[in-house]
Amino acid sequence: MIRPLVIGFDADDTLWHNEIIFERVHERYRALLARYHDATTVDRTLLATEKRNLELYGYGVKGFTLCAIETAIALTQGKIGASEIDGILVLGREMLAHPVELLEGVADVVSELAKKHTLLLITKGDLRDQERKLAKSGLAGRFHLVEIVSEKDRSTYETIFRRHAIAPDRFLMVGNSLKSDILPVLALGGAGAHVPYHLTWAHERVEELPTADGRFFQLKTMRELPVVVRTLVGR
Amino acid sequence: MIRPLVIGFDADDTLWHNEIIFERVHERYRALLARYHDATTVDRTLLATEKRNLELYGYGVKGFTLCAIETAIALTQGKIGASEIDGILVLGREMLAHPVELLEGVADVVSELAKKHTLLLITKGDLRDQERKLAKSGLAGRFHLVEIVSEKDRSTYETIFRRHAIAPDRFLMVGNSLKSDILPVLALGGAGAHVPYHLTWAHERVEELPTADGRFFQLKTMRELPVVVRTLVGR
Repeated sequence: MIRPLVIGFDADDTLWHNEIIFERVHERYRALLARYHDATTVDRTLLATEKRNLELYGYGVKGFTLCAIETAIALTQGKIGASEIDGILVLGREMLAHPVELLEGVADVVSELAKKHTLLLITKGDLRDQERKLAKSGLAGRFHLVEIVSEKDRSTYETIFRRHAIAPDRFLMVGNSLKSDILPVLALGGAGAHVPYHLTWAHERVEELPTADGRFFQLKTMRELPVVVRTLVGR
Repeated sequence: MIRPLVIGFDADDTLWHNEIIFERVHERYRALLARYHDATTVDRTLLATEKRNLELYGYGVKGFTLCAIETAIALTQGKIGASEIDGILVLGREMLAHPVELLEGVADVVSELAKKHTLLLITKGDLRDQERKLAKSGLAGRFHLVEIVSEKDRSTYETIFRRHAIAPDRFLMVGNSLKSDILPVLALGGAGAHVPYHLTWAHERVEELPTADGRFFQLKTMRELPVVVRTLVGR
């Protein structure tokens, strides 16, 4: 007998590329400010602006764009021109209109698992941006529920578990961020499969590695996920 | 015997003031551009920018701020200075940090109705901004569920009904926008109570008035809502 799981998937950099798009934008942003500052200073100041504004702006492209403008004005002591600021607005809109590129193996694995298990999409970022990416991804029909949240911490997952009557010991979360996808779920008694992306936003980095015995799975690619699911189903 | 309803509430300008804060910001924005253009041109151009970007940005303060910057650059043909653009960023952050001021009667009526009925908050805008306003409002505990959505049209309400197993004929939506709160709900067989706010964003204006017989209620203030609810409960 099979006991189906509820499997939560992170979206950005778990199902589709995201950080690489930000990274390309960062490069163009550094080039824009190269006359004024070296790349390290630009990166450090932008990250500081993002952290300072995170509570007000939350995650996503719109907040990033506002932070990039604020940083450019500060770093040039107001010498940056309006046309350069307009260029930052254009960068932001390009990110929002960017095509969605699935990661290798995702389409197959998600389709396979959707046949026997309940799949949720649990992601943070701008509401409309995430909805648009899901629509463009072609995966929308595979997910039973979509939760776009402003933060992914323990209380967020508790709310989702309560709201949808999910038993934590039948829940597996899959994502590229230990901090947002794995640690809070393990803390609540769920299982976590970490599929790292080759780039991690500085804000999401953690040093600690989870120890939850038998409930934490470190994967190299999404292709390994079905084996993890079979292990958990058998329990 | 009482048959409880599910009552959905819009948030901005239904539970708490919002448009008036935008209106004050618009005034300061017009003043900022007064050297270049008259108020009518500024308003018209800003609204056109917002409509053009709505699909990408969605609703909310962050998108508004980005549109205000874009419009300022366009209207001044790039002559606006970085410090003035920084002033627009400050306006945006002030809006996000603004205190939440409940409309008259809201606290009493929501508390009373929460005793016997299931209350939902259904609102659009930036995720984190709406969550922050709900937390600040002191009303969070009254709502059984909170749905922050990117658009409030027929399919949005259909999804909410399905997701939470709501029978449309036991559902009443309360809000200040005919377009977003009332018309789509009436079309699905629910009831709507329209409580106008004294300001309506141009984008939300409709000319038509609903005709749904016995399911549409035009109120002057939130204080009249309990009578509407008693009428519906008795059916």
